[in-house]
Amino acid sequence: MDNFVYHNATKILFGKGTDAQVGAETKHYNTKVLVHTGMGSVKRSGLFDRVVKSLKAAGVDFVELAGVQPNPRLGLVQQGIQLCRDQKIGFILAVGGGSVIDSAKAIAAGVPYTGNVWDFYEGKASPKAALPVGCVLTIPAAGSETSGSTVITKEDGGFKRGLTSTEYLRPVFAILDPELTATLPVFETAVGAADIMSHVMERYFTNTTNVDYSDRLCEATMRGVIRNLPIVLARPHDYDARAELMWLGTQAHSDLIGMGRVGDWASHDIEHELSGLYDVPHGAGLATVFPAWMKHVYKHDLARFNQWAVRVWGVEMDHKNPEKTALEGIAKLQGFYTSCGLPTTLKELKVPDDKLEVMADKATSGNRRTVGNFVKLDRDGVLAVLKLAR
Amino acid sequence: MDNFVYHNATKILFGKGTDAQVGAETKHYNTKVLVHTGMGSVKRSGLFDRVVKSLKAAGVDFVELAGVQPNPRLGLVQQGIQLCRDQKIGFILAVGGGSVIDSAKAIAAGVPYTGNVWDFYEGKASPKAALPVGCVLTIPAAGSETSGSTVITKEDGGFKRGLTSTEYLRPVFAILDPELTATLPVFETAVGAADIMSHVMERYFTNTTNVDYSDRLCEATMRGVIRNLPIVLARPHDYDARAELMWLGTQAHSDLIGMGRVGDWASHDIEHELSGLYDVPHGAGLATVFPAWMKHVYKHDLARFNQWAVRVWGVEMDHKNPEKTALEGIAKLQGFYTSCGLPTTLKELKVPDDKLEVMADKATSGNRRTVGNFVKLDRDGVLAVLKLAR
Repeated sequence: MDNFVYHNATKILFGKGTDAQVGAETKHYNTKVLVHTGMGSVKRSGLFDRVVKSLKAAGVDFVELAGVQPNPRLGLVQQGIQLCRDQKIGFILAVGGGSVIDSAKAIAAGVPYTGNVWDFYEGKASPKAALPVGCVLTIPAAGSETSGSTVITKEDGGFKRGLTSTEYLRPVFAILDPELTATLPVFETAVGAADIMSHVMERYFTNTTNVDYSDRLCEATMRGVIRNLPIVLARPHDYDARAELMWLGTQAHSDLIGMGRVGDWASHDIEHELSGLYDVPHGAGLATVFPAWMKHVYKHDLARFNQWAVRVWGVEMDHKNPEKTALEGIAKLQGFYTSCGLPTTLKELKVPDDKLEVMADKATSGNRRTVGNFVKLDRDGVLAVLKLAR
Repeated sequence: MDNFVYHNATKILFGKGTDAQVGAETKHYNTKVLVHTGMGSVKRSGLFDRVVKSLKAAGVDFVELAGVQPNPRLGLVQQGIQLCRDQKIGFILAVGGGSVIDSAKAIAAGVPYTGNVWDFYEGKASPKAALPVGCVLTIPAAGSETSGSTVITKEDGGFKRGLTSTEYLRPVFAILDPELTATLPVFETAVGAADIMSHVMERYFTNTTNVDYSDRLCEATMRGVIRNLPIVLARPHDYDARAELMWLGTQAHSDLIGMGRVGDWASHDIEHELSGLYDVPHGAGLATVFPAWMKHVYKHDLARFNQWAVRVWGVEMDHKNPEKTALEGIAKLQGFYTSCGLPTTLKELKVPDDKLEVMADKATSGNRRTVGNFVKLDRDGVLAVLKLAR
């Protein structure tokens, strides 16, 4: 196990009716806030009105900025930064899914920064301050509700890039009401769950040795998704399974389950190219990339793939044929995604295969950097994964 | 799953050499601190000198209060409160095991309180403020390093009572260096691990339904202890297994693994009577009480005991005889403790059986309250458990 610092101070309010507490939680931080929302679903569901009522009851003034799209855009972030500066706003409340929270974090980091906020996403600078962010989550997926991560897409060139600051960008509170997810369509639910699975698998496939407990925490999380997602797809209003999925989504990316180990993250980097160019849903892209990545790298550490196949998927270990056992695990993952209505090939994702080289090039900055840690993939490696995903 | 609030803001610095950071972490809070220690082991090991050096380098002044015993006493707590008031101390640094941290929390809660700090432990008042507490942990066991709990023994009458305030009593930072535990004697290591197992089992045995993910997190934690404790007992200087055990101990009581469910805690309440009267090590008392408690209550929810036996202990489910499967699980636990050199009977614990009624009476305040939630035990119930533990 590697040395680590773990500090996740997000206050989580979990359960039925917790959205009514948003005003009381917000006013601890500021009484002039930006309410950041997406494409209108929180208005249609009535959540926005409840949030406004709670804010007003707590004496909190707000300005609204709606319109965050999936794969949130830099343009709206820059608009939000200007708005916060003009209106002297001191707190950002994200009401929506991971895209809204990611956009809120970008605004929060950008307000006190004198340069262009995109610097952070290009690795040219690191946040040294940020406005506090709180959130009311509507989609279990990104785990952004307690993470220090944000992913933004720059429209010009379709660059989708991530930023992590566990010191400044973890939300100060997260309101997680599983009832808010009951009306989430089946496909969006499955896409979110694929994102959750991916956050765990990125951490699970590691070269760090002696990581027994975190292996087990990751396995518990994956098995939780495998058990609860089909229930939710069959019975969208099943509160208990919705609650499990929401809590799984948060813990998959709260950092706790991956402490003391180096994660991989190649699949995320490769998926960012898919979303950047084709605007596919992040989780659907991951459901496509991850099995392909596994087929490309599994021989690097057969024992780890065997452990995963046996403990997570209940594959019977074929002691005479570890390779077969590993491949069975990968087939189980792919079959699970298919059974949940997710694409697992570029074809199903409706992504043509004429720009695989372009994506491999962009992911590796023209072969000047590698992606991933479990196996470091250069341009050829990324291309091989994309070809396996066709 | 029940609604819950989870907020654990303790900053964890984990790994080799992290004790050198204690000064830098402490000075964020105050430059006049109380360093609270136990019976001298931190002096003999050289840790105390390193802590002092780090504090001095950071410009932090300190006053020392040593002498915390296992089952920490109210007398020393009151001495500490007076010392902090007299010397205008604003931060308490606990250097030691759970007893030292628990004592530090009691002092921290007592300083700003005008009444007697014991009021908190008798449930007559709740802390509304406390000095911040930080810690350098030397024994993986109590989980006090990130919990809001403290247990203190009042010498007069041998009353051992607990207090929990997740708002005011979680340490602000916890330095967890597994190397500090390498010289911990075999018996103390096993006793600590029994405490860890107990913190998980208290949460695992619940009547709350639909707790799939937290079940799995608890199971991951128990399996981690079962795997790593024997390694540590056989090879006390095995850093990797020591690290696992330390991290397991923290997570077993950080509250995360038990969110959304009501734990039992009868075994802790019963053990407090053993420690209160006979001053037995807490973990040894728990190793004795828990199997007896299980034998008394397992029929209340055979399915849960079956799941525990199968998933945690690898017992093969006897579908025609669930009762046998449950009892096999309990036998596995008891056998595991015995193989680790722990007592599992009052006789082995050297506790006579002539005061069982007295303990049952004290635990239930003269049969005016019950203990436990999974099964509510009155005086007769507690007595039955104690008799099964003989």
